[in-house]
Amino acid sequence: MTFHAIIPAGGAGSRLWPLSRASHPKFLVDFGSGHTMIHDTVTRLAPLTSSIYTVTGTAHAAAVREQLADIHTPLHYVVEPSPRGTMAAIGIAAALAHRSDPDALVGSFAADHRISNTAAFTTAVRTALHAAERGYLVTLGITPTGPATGFGYIRAGGPLAGGPLAGGQLAGDTAALAVEKFVEKPDADTAASYLAQGGYYWNAGIFVAHAATLMDMLAEYRPDIAAPLRQLAQLWDLDSVQQTAQVEELWASIPKEVIDRAVAEPAAAAGRVAVVPADMGWSDVGDYDSLAEGIPAGELTTQRIPGNTGAPVLAIDAPDSLVYSSTKPIVVVGVPGAVVIDTENALLVTTREKAQDVKKAVDGLDAAGLADLR
Amino acid sequence: MTFHAIIPAGGAGSRLWPLSRASHPKFLVDFGSGHTMIHDTVTRLAPLTSSIYTVTGTAHAAAVREQLADIHTPLHYVVEPSPRGTMAAIGIAAALAHRSDPDALVGSFAADHRISNTAAFTTAVRTALHAAERGYLVTLGITPTGPATGFGYIRAGGPLAGGPLAGGQLAGDTAALAVEKFVEKPDADTAASYLAQGGYYWNAGIFVAHAATLMDMLAEYRPDIAAPLRQLAQLWDLDSVQQTAQVEELWASIPKEVIDRAVAEPAAAAGRVAVVPADMGWSDVGDYDSLAEGIPAGELTTQRIPGNTGAPVLAIDAPDSLVYSSTKPIVVVGVPGAVVIDTENALLVTTREKAQDVKKAVDGLDAAGLADLR
Repeated sequence: MTFHAIIPAGGAGSRLWPLSRASHPKFLVDFGSGHTMIHDTVTRLAPLTSSIYTVTGTAHAAAVREQLADIHTPLHYVVEPSPRGTMAAIGIAAALAHRSDPDALVGSFAADHRISNTAAFTTAVRTALHAAERGYLVTLGITPTGPATGFGYIRAGGPLAGGPLAGGQLAGDTAALAVEKFVEKPDADTAASYLAQGGYYWNAGIFVAHAATLMDMLAEYRPDIAAPLRQLAQLWDLDSVQQTAQVEELWASIPKEVIDRAVAEPAAAAGRVAVVPADMGWSDVGDYDSLAEGIPAGELTTQRIPGNTGAPVLAIDAPDSLVYSSTKPIVVVGVPGAVVIDTENALLVTTREKAQDVKKAVDGLDAAGLADLR
Repeated sequence: MTFHAIIPAGGAGSRLWPLSRASHPKFLVDFGSGHTMIHDTVTRLAPLTSSIYTVTGTAHAAAVREQLADIHTPLHYVVEPSPRGTMAAIGIAAALAHRSDPDALVGSFAADHRISNTAAFTTAVRTALHAAERGYLVTLGITPTGPATGFGYIRAGGPLAGGPLAGGQLAGDTAALAVEKFVEKPDADTAASYLAQGGYYWNAGIFVAHAATLMDMLAEYRPDIAAPLRQLAQLWDLDSVQQTAQVEELWASIPKEVIDRAVAEPAAAAGRVAVVPADMGWSDVGDYDSLAEGIPAGELTTQRIPGNTGAPVLAIDAPDSLVYSSTKPIVVVGVPGAVVIDTENALLVTTREKAQDVKKAVDGLDAAGLADLR
């Protein structure tokens, strides 16, 4: 058995503008670890995997390759001719892994999430691999830390059919459970009720399975996606930025869909999905509030995004604020939870409470004649 | 009769940092009129006066002279060897005006206040001159627009002894009244009671009198200040940056005092002070909130300090905010009343509500290793 990680790297992360830009998206940003998020993601997965498939658009292919130049685990670069959704992105990589090893296990992991507890992550992935070997599509379910409305939830049922897993016995509270269903992002009351009931986990978009299982499920639930992918797997020039016209045409014919809807939801309804609960310090770093929450309390007292070595910051009566400075000293007075991001060519001022609305501002840049700052 | 304006130009205006600096104080800043505050002050007074005496420290003497190069009214530059308070500053200029014309009337006007209604100001000063000719020390009393706690108040009594003034008949509601007393900055409850009672005006530090009257009062109430000033008036080299050692020594011997305490308060107790109520769009532009209040509503919708021609500003869900940009576009999201001042070498983020606390930040610059930004 071999295990291959698939890392779809897309999305601009516009709520983290101006650190994240269309031309320099979130997965290429270093939010204080000393490395870009995609580099951290690969480093976290390298000890567990036989190889890693990154999946990017053409615009960022070179940057991703450059970022990962120092990684020793075998890397493959899948460059999408155009964006066709996460199902196509993960599907083509799974099909390519299956081409190289028919017994391959694969796992998809976002390029731009933070996981602070690597040991817990590793244990959860190992447990997921055991369940995947038994034919399940396995997701990691993030133990909720609050009634978040920004994530989908996974409703867990009882232990997997066929008795407890070896992995479950090894890993204590990370034993795999059956998934009853995936539910969409809830409103605040619904989210609160999920937490009160228990048995709900955040859906972080992490899926582990035999490549063959995933492709079989896709063939069953979405043959219109499975068929071109199967064909593409034979024709694809791996690690090349440029594919043939035939490949590009086939690729463009794939219906745009996310993996959750294409495979995970129908498979869950059929009792074919397992969840491994994981309490591993996960964050999607979706906005500046989420970024701030991930900073250890001791480091946040400096009000600086860790790793930011810009000019000094003086914060007066501004607890829990988050500041990123460049060449110019920044003084914040009397704005608790202020977010001040001073980059070379754009300055953002908001608060952690309003951090979600940064997307609105980015959407407004064009009308303000500032399209080049996107 | 001649009338000479005295413009003491001192004080850093630290609550308007970083636009105002110790090295570039508030009176040398252009807050949107197209001219510095001292230039606006001189322009406002020029049509009323025979000459204007500016009083500055050595550090800003050259800058003030440069600022006023295009003014046609005769200007005199009084350069203080060291700061000795407003009594010495106004006193030396009054003594010098008296030296050139024993019948001279003088009036002191801060260099860094805004007056939006020049016609009302002119009328009030003319009324004050009438009262001054009758031997009063005359102050302009600003009609309060709210229960401010940042200003001293003037308690007005009845019409001046000797019947109504000619000026009063000319100027309607600007007739001069006797001053009962000056009161210190009140707390909020006291300020509210002043407004409820009526008859209270803000003390803007504007005093008009015969130079001889002012010097006589000073001789009576503070002979220790009057004596060296009388001597200095004979020895002073007007318009020179450098005085003799004898002058410097005499100057340094003057007790440091403000004109209110040295002369205005005791003279009021003796029935020798008049007040001309004035509703003239006055503001001390004491902080960014005060600065914002002085901007016409139509102009503030741009969120920009008028006259600021820096990079674009995009304000989303940030009503009543005040932004000053330099080379870099600024995006403000979800911070009503935000104040964002981006200068060449320092960035301030606060709110209009907390604008008073900017002083705290400036006081904290030294400890933060940022003393050079003061």
